[in-house]
Amino acid sequence: MTQEAWQKHSQWPMVAASLIFLVAYSIQVIADLGPDQSRAIDLIITITWLAFGADYLISLLLAPKKVRWFLRNLHELVILVLPVLRPLRLLRLLTLLKILHRASGNALRGRIITYVIVSAGLLIYAGSLAVLDAEENAAGSNITNFWDALWWSMTTITTVGYGDHYPVTVLGRLVAIGLMIGGITVLGVVTASFASWLIERVKNETVYETEQEDESLRIEISRLASEVARLSAQLESRKS
Amino acid sequence: MTQEAWQKHSQWPMVAASLIFLVAYSIQVIADLGPDQSRAIDLIITITWLAFGADYLISLLLAPKKVRWFLRNLHELVILVLPVLRPLRLLRLLTLLKILHRASGNALRGRIITYVIVSAGLLIYAGSLAVLDAEENAAGSNITNFWDALWWSMTTITTVGYGDHYPVTVLGRLVAIGLMIGGITVLGVVTASFASWLIERVKNETVYETEQEDESLRIEISRLASEVARLSAQLESRKS
Amino acid sequence: MTQEAWQKHSQWPMVAASLIFLVAYSIQVIADLGPDQSRAIDLIITITWLAFGADYLISLLLAPKKVRWFLRNLHELVILVLPVLRPLRLLRLLTLLKILHRASGNALRGRIITYVIVSAGLLIYAGSLAVLDAEENAAGSNITNFWDALWWSMTTITTVGYGDHYPVTVLGRLVAIGLMIGGITVLGVVTASFASWLIERVKNETVYETEQEDESLRIEISRLASEVARLSAQLESRKS
Amino acid sequence: MTQEAWQKHSQWPMVAASLIFLVAYSIQVIADLGPDQSRAIDLIITITWLAFGADYLISLLLAPKKVRWFLRNLHELVILVLPVLRPLRLLRLLTLLKILHRASGNALRGRIITYVIVSAGLLIYAGSLAVLDAEENAAGSNITNFWDALWWSMTTITTVGYGDHYPVTVLGRLVAIGLMIGGITVLGVVTASFASWLIERVKNETVYETEQEDESLRIEISRLASEVARLSAQLESRKS
Repeated sequence: MTQEAWQKHSQWPMVAASLIFLVAYSIQVIADLGPDQSRAIDLIITITWLAFGADYLISLLLAPKKVRWFLRNLHELVILVLPVLRPLRLLRLLTLLKILHRASGNALRGRIITYVIVSAGLLIYAGSLAVLDAEENAAGSNITNFWDALWWSMTTITTVGYGDHYPVTVLGRLVAIGLMIGGITVLGVVTASFASWLIERVKNETVYETEQEDESLRIEISRLASEVARLSAQLESRKS
Repeated sequence: MTQEAWQKHSQWPMVAASLIFLVAYSIQVIADLGPDQSRAIDLIITITWLAFGADYLISLLLAPKKVRWFLRNLHELVILVLPVLRPLRLLRLLTLLKILHRASGNALRGRIITYVIVSAGLLIYAGSLAVLDAEENAAGSNITNFWDALWWSMTTITTVGYGDHYPVTVLGRLVAIGLMIGGITVLGVVTASFASWLIERVKNETVYETEQEDESLRIEISRLASEVARLSAQLESRKS
Repeated sequence: MTQEAWQKHSQWPMVAASLIFLVAYSIQVIADLGPDQSRAIDLIITITWLAFGADYLISLLLAPKKVRWFLRNLHELVILVLPVLRPLRLLRLLTLLKILHRASGNALRGRIITYVIVSAGLLIYAGSLAVLDAEENAAGSNITNFWDALWWSMTTITTVGYGDHYPVTVLGRLVAIGLMIGGITVLGVVTASFASWLIERVKNETVYETEQEDESLRIEISRLASEVARLSAQLESRKS
Repeated sequence: MTQEAWQKHSQWPMVAASLIFLVAYSIQVIADLGPDQSRAIDLIITITWLAFGADYLISLLLAPKKVRWFLRNLHELVILVLPVLRPLRLLRLLTLLKILHRASGNALRGRIITYVIVSAGLLIYAGSLAVLDAEENAAGSNITNFWDALWWSMTTITTVGYGDHYPVTVLGRLVAIGLMIGGITVLGVVTASFASWLIERVKNETVYETEQEDESLRIEISRLASEVARLSAQLESRKS
């Protein structure tokens, strides 16, 4: 079996595992669980983690150039091995978007905008869970429930930063940095998309004029060609 | 009667209802009303709401494809039904802009800039009313008069976010998120408009050069055509 | 005397008056003056104000279409009449830039960048003086010396907004709003300038290719022309 | 020896001196040193400073137009002479990037992005060291360890500005202003790069169409040329 065939078959099961992880991780961080429930959730998360790990290993074994694939997918290994980077597993859901787009085949700009909106949404959700996980029980923390975490994520990704809530732990600050960089990227992409659209619209008029001039050149050459043809026919007739 | 005809006739009355709602809602949120005045304002707001509702229902009934129109205008129904989204009814005033522009027919960039300025103004005003409505009587709130609400809206839409005022209720925070997204959009549009203008100005020189080269090509072909014509005339004269 | 001639002659004296106003107003706001010194500074500011007023009146009287000029320069009247808008008189110094540029004749992008940097500098300086003037003696204010005011202006125009200093008076907040709008504009212009430069650089390669293709078309037509000429010469020689 | 030859030879030693300075200065600011260690670090920093000074002097002496070189490199002298600007010596490491790029020869946009990421990283690191150096022992300061300084740098360069940490000394605020300006530039460059990429991608389709039309014009002319050639051959054959 080739790596490509494997990835085609594992695509949907992996999306399912991501969704299960999304729900289980959300419950673990947000809800106040009893010991039994907590163990059940832990089990579910472990199972999704094993699924991700199996997919990684099989992909590695099926890769035609194993060392190269290993180096290019180092980030996947890091996300798998470090428990701290657990929330990043949620970004796996972006493959869902890739599958959907492959089917539809939208225009470039529309595709980019969908991508940005969904990525920003996932980033905000994953960031909120991650910061709550890190700050919930920290001393001097001011992010202690999911709603505050979500609000803080929004003020961070938009670079507003009121300062009514902010992370105090190392992990929480790393999440914040991720959100800030995400926010700058989102702003850049939104602006660029709009600029591209506007420039295109304004240019269309100019292009129309140029096309008309090109058209007149084409007519001129066409007339020249028919003149030469007439000349040629004339010579022909005199020969006979 | 077709839907289009209805919307053409209801345009101006709906703008009037929006303006009445604007004034009544502003008074209700900002002023300190006695019970009689409060009832009067409530009545006026209810009447404008009935007008909006009637317009919605008639538009729906007159639509050629009812289900499609219903799905595409779901946001209007949501704004009508949820009292919480009341401030969004102010955005109806943007139709005023649409009417004005249809009459004038400005250049694209000028139209966009007018649109952005008026939308941002409406957004700031509606956001200030909405946040004040939500926070005024909340525990631990620090936005308690209209002037503070307006100031807070400005610091939010520009993503400055001093943190001297910030919402503490769920509703107030949703208003804030709306303003942040609005702010990012405004920034993107301003930047894109300027970029489009600048790129056009810089390019004009280049286009001028290209046009001159095209001109020389045209002259060359024109000379060729007259040469062929001369040749043809020569043959003609020899025949006779 | 025409309005144009007057404005040409009054240009430099008005720049001088602006500079004198700049120094006098700075001293008035920043320094701790005795009553005698205070009266002297008041006198100087009044004199520059009279100079601005005289220039306004004479320009109005010399205008060919007085009503139109009046309406188009309403902002100048407002700045002159309202003492609150005094700091905006500093923006008069931007004419200095206009004069300099008329002499040099730089490229568009370079001119825009100079303009933005100088405008931003003036805006920050004028904003700092204005906010200090407004907040210095206000109750609960936290901007009480020029250095704090300058620092606050920087955090506002860049939309950082730490919140360690913020205005509490109506006037101070209006200054803040002016700085925020200025900041968004500066950011937009910087981004647009860079985008324009980058797009031009990237395109140059493409344009080069297109030019080469155009060149080959030109050669083809040129060859065709010489062929026709040869043909024509041949016919000529056979006739003789 | 020419200035160019000298700079080519001194390139790598200067990068080495910058790296040594980077490490020594980091230790000096971050670590809690005993008097002996402190003296050792001071010595190392002085040696790198002498190396920078010697490079500056030799470059000046070897310059063909000494006055012009002096004026154009005034910023280097200022950085060398003022101890306060010490952290800016770290920016020397950007030459490393210049060397690497000269070797590779990447595409323009890729080069700009590498440049921006490395510059932003250096700016954040140098800014964190500088602000810590300035604030560490100041009264009322809230930036007292390197990790807080780094976190503050990130919130400043992204213009988030929570306000949980902010500089209170003149020097610290100057560092902040540098970071803010850096942040605006980074945002501008990121947006512009993306806009340039997007515009190019969208345009490629249009260009493709134009090229096809140009192609049809080329075929038309080519056919015309062969027609003329046939005509010419005919005349030739009749002559014989």
